[in-house]
Amino acid sequence: MKSRKFDVGQDLGPKDLETPGRKNRHQDLCLWLRLLTLHKLIDNEMRRRLRDSYNMSLARFHLLAQLSVAPNGLRMGELSSRMMVTTGNVTGLTDDLEAEGLVERVVDPSNRRANLVHMTRKGRALFDEAAQMLEIWIEDFFSIYSSKDKQLLFDLLGKQKAFVLKRLKSAHTEAAE
Amino acid sequence: MKSRKFDVGQDLGPKDLETPGRKNRHQDLCLWLRLLTLHKLIDNEMRRRLRDSYNMSLARFHLLAQLSVAPNGLRMGELSSRMMVTTGNVTGLTDDLEAEGLVERVVDPSNRRANLVHMTRKGRALFDEAAQMLEIWIEDFFSIYSSKDKQLLFDLLGKQKAFVLKRLKSAHTEAAE
Repeated sequence: MKSRKFDVGQDLGPKDLETPGRKNRHQDLCLWLRLLTLHKLIDNEMRRRLRDSYNMSLARFHLLAQLSVAPNGLRMGELSSRMMVTTGNVTGLTDDLEAEGLVERVVDPSNRRANLVHMTRKGRALFDEAAQMLEIWIEDFFSIYSSKDKQLLFDLLGKQKAFVLKRLKSAHTEAAE
Repeated sequence: MKSRKFDVGQDLGPKDLETPGRKNRHQDLCLWLRLLTLHKLIDNEMRRRLRDSYNMSLARFHLLAQLSVAPNGLRMGELSSRMMVTTGNVTGLTDDLEAEGLVERVVDPSNRRANLVHMTRKGRALFDEAAQMLEIWIEDFFSIYSSKDKQLLFDLLGKQKAFVLKRLKSAHTEAAE
């Protein structure tokens, strides 16, 4: 079954990650590469601005964002699964943030052998400031869409997210059998 | 100006990068986090499969993809701008791929002081095999959408891409003034 060819439209800006897909015009490949190019454009810029304005990496921002909605703190395993990265990755980030007094590890009262990561007051203050600014940047980058377009896009992407999650779950179940 | 609150719908799967946005229901933040979560779900899985099946990182795949549509080879600067990563990043990748005989550096005939990176025959064979498989994986992950939805999504994301590119360009022009 061949996927339909796409109307790839005109070139948008300089050559980038989408370029190889545009040459072969495979519909799904083009869509995937556009999704990832747009993600990368926004990500690179948010990364640059957070670093310039708050000396904060985007990974640190996402870690603090998770703690900001977890008043009881989070275990490392929970943090890494929410952040969709490896535990090693989160351990390094937490070490750095702890050294700067932005988070702290405390013993989990429900399991004395486990630690919970908490945001400190200093971490909360820095995060709140950065998050407020990031909201403004993000609002600007999404201001091209009408409110209706935003809901449409959110729902379309959600449909795929649910589907991909189901696919991954069944792949992992098969692998374990 | 406050952005409208979103209909965030039901939770899709376990807690993830979207979770902090869902708590505050800021429309643009939710949309950004959904885009990045979906990207990361697909990216992590493609990364895992390429590594398991072809011992190839996703970054290597994207580098070879660029060379696959550049029969005359590409300069390092052009490679890094197309891949939207730093030159240092691309230099390391190219060194590794060259050591495995998948790419080669040749002197640029139009400028003897510059090098062009080419795909070798071995690189082309490996890339073609991996790309064919990746197309099948991607087709599966996008099979939830109708052809009409795909075109709609492609065009919506393209609209934002063009807008973000314009914003970045004017930001950089201002900074240079």
